[in-house]
Amino acid sequence: MEMTMLGIDLNCDMGEGFGVHPGGDDLALLEYVTSANIACGFHAGDPAIMSRTVKAAAARGVAIGAHPGLPDLQGFGRRVMHVSAQEVYDLTVYQVGALRGFTAAVGVALHHVKAHGALYNMAARDVELARALCRAVRDVSPGLVFYALAGSAMVSAAEEIGLAVAREAFADRSYQDDGTLTPRGQPGAMIADLEQSITQVRRMLADGVVHSLAGRELPLRADTICIHGDQPGALDFARGLATALRRDRVALRAPAP
Amino acid sequence: MEMTMLGIDLNCDMGEGFGVHPGGDDLALLEYVTSANIACGFHAGDPAIMSRTVKAAAARGVAIGAHPGLPDLQGFGRRVMHVSAQEVYDLTVYQVGALRGFTAAVGVALHHVKAHGALYNMAARDVELARALCRAVRDVSPGLVFYALAGSAMVSAAEEIGLAVAREAFADRSYQDDGTLTPRGQPGAMIADLEQSITQVRRMLADGVVHSLAGRELPLRADTICIHGDQPGALDFARGLATALRRDRVALRAPAP
Amino acid sequence: MEMTMLGIDLNCDMGEGFGVHPGGDDLALLEYVTSANIACGFHAGDPAIMSRTVKAAAARGVAIGAHPGLPDLQGFGRRVMHVSAQEVYDLTVYQVGALRGFTAAVGVALHHVKAHGALYNMAARDVELARALCRAVRDVSPGLVFYALAGSAMVSAAEEIGLAVAREAFADRSYQDDGTLTPRGQPGAMIADLEQSITQVRRMLADGVVHSLAGRELPLRADTICIHGDQPGALDFARGLATALRRDRVALRAPAP
Amino acid sequence: MEMTMLGIDLNCDMGEGFGVHPGGDDLALLEYVTSANIACGFHAGDPAIMSRTVKAAAARGVAIGAHPGLPDLQGFGRRVMHVSAQEVYDLTVYQVGALRGFTAAVGVALHHVKAHGALYNMAARDVELARALCRAVRDVSPGLVFYALAGSAMVSAAEEIGLAVAREAFADRSYQDDGTLTPRGQPGAMIADLEQSITQVRRMLADGVVHSLAGRELPLRADTICIHGDQPGALDFARGLATALRRDRVALRAPAP
Repeated sequence: MEMTMLGIDLNCDMGEGFGVHPGGDDLALLEYVTSANIACGFHAGDPAIMSRTVKAAAARGVAIGAHPGLPDLQGFGRRVMHVSAQEVYDLTVYQVGALRGFTAAVGVALHHVKAHGALYNMAARDVELARALCRAVRDVSPGLVFYALAGSAMVSAAEEIGLAVAREAFADRSYQDDGTLTPRGQPGAMIADLEQSITQVRRMLADGVVHSLAGRELPLRADTICIHGDQPGALDFARGLATALRRDRVALRAPAP
Repeated sequence: MEMTMLGIDLNCDMGEGFGVHPGGDDLALLEYVTSANIACGFHAGDPAIMSRTVKAAAARGVAIGAHPGLPDLQGFGRRVMHVSAQEVYDLTVYQVGALRGFTAAVGVALHHVKAHGALYNMAARDVELARALCRAVRDVSPGLVFYALAGSAMVSAAEEIGLAVAREAFADRSYQDDGTLTPRGQPGAMIADLEQSITQVRRMLADGVVHSLAGRELPLRADTICIHGDQPGALDFARGLATALRRDRVALRAPAP
Repeated sequence: MEMTMLGIDLNCDMGEGFGVHPGGDDLALLEYVTSANIACGFHAGDPAIMSRTVKAAAARGVAIGAHPGLPDLQGFGRRVMHVSAQEVYDLTVYQVGALRGFTAAVGVALHHVKAHGALYNMAARDVELARALCRAVRDVSPGLVFYALAGSAMVSAAEEIGLAVAREAFADRSYQDDGTLTPRGQPGAMIADLEQSITQVRRMLADGVVHSLAGRELPLRADTICIHGDQPGALDFARGLATALRRDRVALRAPAP
Repeated sequence: MEMTMLGIDLNCDMGEGFGVHPGGDDLALLEYVTSANIACGFHAGDPAIMSRTVKAAAARGVAIGAHPGLPDLQGFGRRVMHVSAQEVYDLTVYQVGALRGFTAAVGVALHHVKAHGALYNMAARDVELARALCRAVRDVSPGLVFYALAGSAMVSAAEEIGLAVAREAFADRSYQDDGTLTPRGQPGAMIADLEQSITQVRRMLADGVVHSLAGRELPLRADTICIHGDQPGALDFARGLATALRRDRVALRAPAP
């Protein structure tokens, strides 16, 4: 007799268009994910897109998060910028606050924060920047969940600062023996096969491990799985993964704050 | 025997620098005003400046407001743009939310919202835009005070939507017979003389009237007086007006929500 | 025996993506148009996109033009902004100069300038703004061709200032009795049927007239026809129109400077 | 009997305000410098400021250069961004082209290009970025002079690509034993004393050497001296240095292309 049900969150970046330029197929993806990270205008998104995306996510009961990025609209927040911890703090407060304006306006609570692109990668490696991010999140609202790369400096910074943390893992990326993601562009970095992705997630859930590209078994606890919404086949991937997990009787749900 | 004490708010736009470019002498002005309207990054201001300005205002107990503007950094939000009511709603929610991130971070409540430049002037004349502004403010937080040009469409829109409203008047601008401000650039538009400004404010407070440029007495109820912080002599003007009003035993205080 | 061959230019706006956001299918459209108006970074486009688009147009021998717009990336340059004649002059010099940097880099001459969106519409009605636009174009390079709405203030301003002008007409828009375009959103504004569009262009070429929506025959001399690249079916439309005109032995060619 | 006259260029960054925010006292500085590096809108400057600054420099016969920077208006182009060589190429073509629009409009030739802030520092160390910068400058116009930190990768890249190069040295910064500038923030990095600055420049001119902070004599050939226009006392410094050099019968003149 099973007492507790396994559960996981499926999160996806959303609202990443700009002006007349549409982003991914957010409305369709909202059917399969349990939390949405919504761009806040610095790397993508604008007030109109944020307004519409928050409304759509709220209407489907999907947990809403802010998705702050570096101030680099042209580079989509993917270019590393040498910013100070204070700059990270300030730009996070700004963007989380702006997104929370829209959740307040539709009467739902902001649920989480996940950093975007270069900001995410920089904070995963640099504990000073990670702490600045976490302090900003806590200072805007201490009840927010912080989405952090499993095993990274972001997890330890969040724990130190007292934020609820959701460890993020990837279904469509392979891992190295040291637990880091295989860099994009290297052979085997991306897992294109849906079944293989599902298997990777099942292992994380059932056994708390992931098999590295070289075949080694590594411990990996994950609370949330990232779905890449802007890639070809994203929708099929999301549907396939969600369907498989539901069939396994895994509860799809956003992390509790 | 005087039962009630006359009171008025002195408000000033602040945090209107950008990046390395400083704005007005905010720290000095904070000694004389009772509420600060802080730019939110669209016409001026940036996360670093907002962070510092909110901290400084909170430290002096000055009531903090968001000062949203049109998305026109180069034009300082002074150029009319043909934006829809929905666009006004969205850009207001965004900017008020962003500023409220910083007040939350320092543990004070956001007190009010005052629109900037062309957005203020457009909403003063166009009740549809005024309603969009007011709905945005209410939807972010219904307890905010809305600063509105006395006698304008903004006042009626705020009342209709159920927002507390503070009617704004000017100490250093002259009025026309129809109650509108004499347009800048016309002779007599600006009141350069401090004593004349003080007299104009005294009349508003004591009698609820203003004398137009042509000498006519017009009804004008004011809850807050705008201090222009970016003009030469701004600091002397603020000090002189505050000192005169205190000597008159007028209570300088932000409007109650 | 036919002595002179009828000729017309087909122009299309290009390079109107931004950052990671793609614009229209420029490479395919370059097969059918004879001149390309390339966005310059204010309403759309960025240095990377301009670089690639100029290279692609030059490789196909398509005449390259600058497509300056208002500084409103979020609104795609479609929102009217109250800018002065001096502001129009300066923003035109800037954008035409920037685009000419890229044509110089690939060793071709910049051929023309066509204003975008709200800037185009404002200059079509306001001769002061039209003159500022034309002066800017002439001051950067007097040999540039100025693309102007046929019958508008832009045509007279260009003639007054001594710029070569190409009168622009529309294949897929209907005209009012006064020669202006039927505003989008009104019934009959858009001509969806390809054959009807081809007929409209044939009349302009053969007889110098257009039939208004109400059936009236109006004089209309056109040197260039605008192809809308960002609409569904744009490619089929461009191909169909180009094919029909070639079959009519109309020479498709950019206007001579 | 002296056959050849010693000569040097004094260059200064200009037009580094933005919108309503003024930059340095450019008009006063134009009396003392022989070349002006004018910001191009990415780290500072905008079309209106570029227009005015180019006009003012041209009126005084000061050689005009483009001063391209990273796309970081808020950070004033001082924050390192990880940009590719292609990105550096494209953003340089864009900005140099834009500035050349304004020089064309006033009928003077663009004279030189000097990179700004983080872009300058990155290209001084990274020869790939330096080559991209130089190729962009050459491709826009092969006759431009490239201002490069003396002894840096920018000098070798320019020579390799066939651009005329002006080696830049500093009057108000001290040098390390390895020929690099003492990093700001370290003791002795700045030379506050005017006489000491003049002595440093005299040695560069007369003997082609500089004395390091530790007292070592290093070879240093300089063609242009950078005047920092945005620091307190900038004007007195520029006047003092220019006056001393003229008294020494050093010809103040921009480098020949």
